[in-house]
Amino acid sequence: MAVKPRAVKVCDVTIGDEALAVMAGPCAVESREQIFAAAAVVSAHGARFLRGGAYKTRTAPNTFQGLGRKGLELLREAAEAHGLLTVTEILAIEEIDASLPFIDLVQLGSRNMHNVPLLRALGRRRVPVLLKRGFGCTIDEWLHAAEYILQEGNPDVVLCERGIRTFEHATRFTLDVAAVAIAKARIGLPVIVDPSHAAGQREWVECLTLAGVASGADGLLIETHPDPDRALSDGPQAVPLSRFGDLMDAARRVAEAVGRSIPCGAPASTLLHGTVAT
Amino acid sequence: MAVKPRAVKVCDVTIGDEALAVMAGPCAVESREQIFAAAAVVSAHGARFLRGGAYKTRTAPNTFQGLGRKGLELLREAAEAHGLLTVTEILAIEEIDASLPFIDLVQLGSRNMHNVPLLRALGRRRVPVLLKRGFGCTIDEWLHAAEYILQEGNPDVVLCERGIRTFEHATRFTLDVAAVAIAKARIGLPVIVDPSHAAGQREWVECLTLAGVASGADGLLIETHPDPDRALSDGPQAVPLSRFGDLMDAARRVAEAVGRSIPCGAPASTLLHGTVAT
Amino acid sequence: MAVKPRAVKVCDVTIGDEALAVMAGPCAVESREQIFAAAAVVSAHGARFLRGGAYKTRTAPNTFQGLGRKGLELLREAAEAHGLLTVTEILAIEEIDASLPFIDLVQLGSRNMHNVPLLRALGRRRVPVLLKRGFGCTIDEWLHAAEYILQEGNPDVVLCERGIRTFEHATRFTLDVAAVAIAKARIGLPVIVDPSHAAGQREWVECLTLAGVASGADGLLIETHPDPDRALSDGPQAVPLSRFGDLMDAARRVAEAVGRSIPCGAPASTLLHGTVAT
Amino acid sequence: MAVKPRAVKVCDVTIGDEALAVMAGPCAVESREQIFAAAAVVSAHGARFLRGGAYKTRTAPNTFQGLGRKGLELLREAAEAHGLLTVTEILAIEEIDASLPFIDLVQLGSRNMHNVPLLRALGRRRVPVLLKRGFGCTIDEWLHAAEYILQEGNPDVVLCERGIRTFEHATRFTLDVAAVAIAKARIGLPVIVDPSHAAGQREWVECLTLAGVASGADGLLIETHPDPDRALSDGPQAVPLSRFGDLMDAARRVAEAVGRSIPCGAPASTLLHGTVAT
Repeated sequence: MAVKPRAVKVCDVTIGDEALAVMAGPCAVESREQIFAAAAVVSAHGARFLRGGAYKTRTAPNTFQGLGRKGLELLREAAEAHGLLTVTEILAIEEIDASLPFIDLVQLGSRNMHNVPLLRALGRRRVPVLLKRGFGCTIDEWLHAAEYILQEGNPDVVLCERGIRTFEHATRFTLDVAAVAIAKARIGLPVIVDPSHAAGQREWVECLTLAGVASGADGLLIETHPDPDRALSDGPQAVPLSRFGDLMDAARRVAEAVGRSIPCGAPASTLLHGTVAT
Repeated sequence: MAVKPRAVKVCDVTIGDEALAVMAGPCAVESREQIFAAAAVVSAHGARFLRGGAYKTRTAPNTFQGLGRKGLELLREAAEAHGLLTVTEILAIEEIDASLPFIDLVQLGSRNMHNVPLLRALGRRRVPVLLKRGFGCTIDEWLHAAEYILQEGNPDVVLCERGIRTFEHATRFTLDVAAVAIAKARIGLPVIVDPSHAAGQREWVECLTLAGVASGADGLLIETHPDPDRALSDGPQAVPLSRFGDLMDAARRVAEAVGRSIPCGAPASTLLHGTVAT
Repeated sequence: MAVKPRAVKVCDVTIGDEALAVMAGPCAVESREQIFAAAAVVSAHGARFLRGGAYKTRTAPNTFQGLGRKGLELLREAAEAHGLLTVTEILAIEEIDASLPFIDLVQLGSRNMHNVPLLRALGRRRVPVLLKRGFGCTIDEWLHAAEYILQEGNPDVVLCERGIRTFEHATRFTLDVAAVAIAKARIGLPVIVDPSHAAGQREWVECLTLAGVASGADGLLIETHPDPDRALSDGPQAVPLSRFGDLMDAARRVAEAVGRSIPCGAPASTLLHGTVAT
Repeated sequence: MAVKPRAVKVCDVTIGDEALAVMAGPCAVESREQIFAAAAVVSAHGARFLRGGAYKTRTAPNTFQGLGRKGLELLREAAEAHGLLTVTEILAIEEIDASLPFIDLVQLGSRNMHNVPLLRALGRRRVPVLLKRGFGCTIDEWLHAAEYILQEGNPDVVLCERGIRTFEHATRFTLDVAAVAIAKARIGLPVIVDPSHAAGQREWVECLTLAGVASGADGLLIETHPDPDRALSDGPQAVPLSRFGDLMDAARRVAEAVGRSIPCGAPASTLLHGTVAT
């Protein structure tokens, strides 16, 4: 009954393969210094993608809304300097053309999972899409959203479980680990896990990271920041860069226990011309 | 602590006044015959707005997606013939300009509550907006979404409670009647109730309609169809047109019990040139 | 498909009849003065039952746990002085025999809805039972719990909807008004509504009371206290006695709008020998 | 801020130690043959406890309610034959005295988490208690329930996360893996995970088992049955005995990845006088 699993290729990285695709970085790109520091550390510990928001849709209108285009440029620059690919969110159809040169994997956020015109517009491009589950949406609705993209001709969809809304508010959302296995069985696409948004507090990020890897996730999307207490958005859930390596070491051990892997250090390209900081 | 209540004027109808604004019609405009039949009946029983979707974002891609522009034209025509205003959903910024001539009150659907670019685009027009609560969203997030519109300069926002997602699946959603009072107290905007989407089955629509009116709602948004069993979308939750009058009579009695009213019959303009069917 | 409705008789009061059964009083019996003050006011405004907890199962162990047997005695005394019946919770089989002389309607609380031995023990007595819905339980599970009582031979079960747990925390629980109509249609037993526990704050009690009455509830269970700010438990959700009359007046108007009634003042018996305070 | 972790000793097994405590067996004891078959297999793969219900509180009254005392006797007999301890549920205070000789770890089920008299009664005995989280209860309410036991003088409480009720019904409940880390940090007691009740379908039990172990659980409670399709209760979620060994092998690898262990085979005592089947 389960469909055949499919991997999704983003440049030279295959998501859905034996190796987990780790995507990490700050919630939002805030400055050159910040994003380069993040890129250096995450690439040194096995990440293949640098994340960082340029256009933020925050829940409330009077909050930091991102650096916009400047953020995209910095993201790409920092990623290239460290041999990383980029993943960031697009919020509207109008942004697509101008943003695509800076993005290797386009994130469609939880609040946009039901934005059908945007799903279709991304379905008509040849760009890999990371489709986050709506926090109030069932697994089936999430897979239907993926089908809107697939039906327009774009087969490169990666799903991301990031927690659903429940009565329990000790965490910001409740990570639905079973959804990883269920989504993979039903649609065959790779599924990664975002432990940061589910946890809401960095204290519980490790627990959810390891649970996500054990549940069979094909990758991780993790928020990490050089100085989380001064982050302009989502600081409480960001892991300090100084602890990112330990988190990856723990995740790597669990990955190996379930027959997967997380690369140990920076990709070869980085070692040639990048700087590896801690 | 509660803010001062504000009414919103849509052409000659004031929402948030003593009289409840009833909006009724089919989920989707399906044909001239269907939408005219609905317009005749709903106007005869006190509705001031004709609802009917032209562009439907259904959860699954392979389902009826609406008549598009033809649907908008039919909606306007049927509404005018019966002295009604129109309310229908817009799904994307690109649709706004072409659609506005046909729409008196623009509905922003539950799945789009977090679509910030669309909220902002509607905030920059002088068009009244009906903002449905996201079914996975808190009252505060809903009010924040309203603020995105208000902050762009458009003060004419009407809120719509339509049920939230809970573990109870005997109804499609759980109507949060307290949200009516809470939203009004916190932001002062008018709040209407959509009992149809919450119920999911027509059997429970009356219960939720009356509860909504008793909770202080400033209006109702109700799905009704000449032949619900043959409806192309959401048939199970549509009240047959033949029962719409009884439903309004019951709602009117409760409205009067809480110091409000629902007009008894068709608006004057209709009586001159419209046809009143059953 | 809906079953035939059945009324439940508790002494001279019929629940499920045209007249709504109002049950009101403090969360817990705290003192003679308090419970007599409550009895006087609630009876003067149409209540037929005095509520007040003697044994409280609070969520946390280090909080006020009730006056125990003394509480039961005071409850009965105050009720008799004002022509009221009593309703209070029993927590364990061991309490039944000693408590029954003081209780006309035995409440089985939300946290005990799944306590099968207690359900069965109450099923083997001829005592009317008020079965609250578990706040994490579906309508079907609630009706199954009722069947445990019915199957032991006790037909006198009254259901009470008191809100379910959802992600929305602006209220303590979300009152599921559709559950009133659904439970009545499926099992035929009377269903009353507890707006106080759902609201969690007295500010929203009126909204939920009126919504409950409009939804077809056969009665109300309301917390009211002479001085809510000094209540030993659940003060924030208690309506001050000084506002109870207005609340009942509002509820009465809605009851009449749906073809029901709430008696206007104290029952005849009270007028003979009780005192009516405000 | 996190409290010091405490281990709980049950006979010769320490829960909360480096080695995970695996508890496995059928939902209900159905026959001598069934429970002995289960005991043989689970002990052969590292379980230290045999589970099996004797008194079942099923949601609906007209379903198999367990073998009662005979079930307890069979459970003990099968456990002893294979060097296992027993864990089973007690539903009422009245059952405690007669049941204790057969039970090493008393389970207090999800539906009884708020049964305060039962919590207190178990608090007054020197018997280790396995306290399952109520499926509609917050982590804090669960820890408060534990305190009712601790305060009566019984320090031997083991917590069990078994899934909470959410809108997602693809699984029966949503396993809250973060609750493992949070409960341990807040109260210091050992926490085990029940993947079977959360999954509701055996297909997802492995995913949740591994996620539970990775999240830091101190043990597992798993339903396994010789012939799940003929099980008298909860068959769909039971893993066939023939697959139990593979499940434990997978769990063991993850346990080792997080610095824990699961014993490889039957405990020494079994090897002397038990039979080890597959």
